[in-house]
Amino acid sequence: MRSPQAALRDGETPSPRPRIQAHSPHHFQSTVSVQKLRRFNVLVLVLRVVAFCFSSASSIFMLVNPKGTDSPRWYDFDAFRFVLAANAIVTVYSLFEMAASVWEISGGVTLLPEILQVWFDFGHDQVFAYLLLSAESAGTELARTMKATDTCTANHAFCVQNEIAIALGFAGFLFLGLSSLLSGFRVVCFIINGSRFHL
Amino acid sequence: MRSPQAALRDGETPSPRPRIQAHSPHHFQSTVSVQKLRRFNVLVLVLRVVAFCFSSASSIFMLVNPKGTDSPRWYDFDAFRFVLAANAIVTVYSLFEMAASVWEISGGVTLLPEILQVWFDFGHDQVFAYLLLSAESAGTELARTMKATDTCTANHAFCVQNEIAIALGFAGFLFLGLSSLLSGFRVVCFIINGSRFHL
Repeated sequence: MRSPQAALRDGETPSPRPRIQAHSPHHFQSTVSVQKLRRFNVLVLVLRVVAFCFSSASSIFMLVNPKGTDSPRWYDFDAFRFVLAANAIVTVYSLFEMAASVWEISGGVTLLPEILQVWFDFGHDQVFAYLLLSAESAGTELARTMKATDTCTANHAFCVQNEIAIALGFAGFLFLGLSSLLSGFRVVCFIINGSRFHL
Repeated sequence: MRSPQAALRDGETPSPRPRIQAHSPHHFQSTVSVQKLRRFNVLVLVLRVVAFCFSSASSIFMLVNPKGTDSPRWYDFDAFRFVLAANAIVTVYSLFEMAASVWEISGGVTLLPEILQVWFDFGHDQVFAYLLLSAESAGTELARTMKATDTCTANHAFCVQNEIAIALGFAGFLFLGLSSLLSGFRVVCFIINGSRFHL
């Protein structure tokens, strides 16, 4: 190892203490870093809450459709079943993630062990975002096809309510996709720094 | 600033040269780091090539369908037009990304300025992966709906060929999605380290 004098001679300055600590896996987090992580977690929580609202609203709209006895039902169509299933899954998942987020913000530690939590969040965000988009696209195509048939002429309200449910699902997908970007960021921070703290 | 002696007294060791350089924006990359980046880029190139093959095959299958004169055509159906458009876009994009990858592997520098390149890759990978999945899901739903109609009874080959095109598109989506994970990794490396080198 070179002596400190040799390092200075070569024009290097010794790294100040916080810099070295920030890149060590077992480090003491500075107050700034903790505050930034907290703000990051609050943003994640907001996205989770919004995604939960949209996907649960979409599920409910699809589920209570329709009220008439002679009207077709959502479970008569595969694509609408897919839409309801995907939205229900995302609703439950968002609920769990909201709880995990609140736990982390209030206690400062993750609900699951840190490495498990960051990979769990990212993996599920990715898969469920793709799942939700796939369901909504299939639902949209079926709704479009149905519009040209007698089903929608006879049961206009049924078709409109399906379209609203699908639109709400698309909004849910948007916020789940944003969450997946943030949880992806956390995973890479974890890979590079060995910690979800990115500073 | 503390003297190097004071740093040593406090139990710190001066950081060896490569560690400091690896975290500085203007750094000299070690040979190991360059080799790892090269391997990473080769992996990206392989994924691009595979995605290109699948999406171009899907486009061609959809485009040349069908040969009979009395058969319906892909442009009669919105969802199939969407499938063809999405696959064509991904084909052109993959071709550009393959060129950019080969350029980077051979020359060691990115085709566009580094910051632009990492964000361009990641943004387009994300958007096009979602686009492709959405198109394939809509196409699948239409193909399923059509199977129950007279169109598929009269033109069996038309329906089978559409299904093959959609399946190829799904395979293309899979590899584009994997590329988007890797380009996302590069973006976060860039945000944290100020460089696409992650070591």
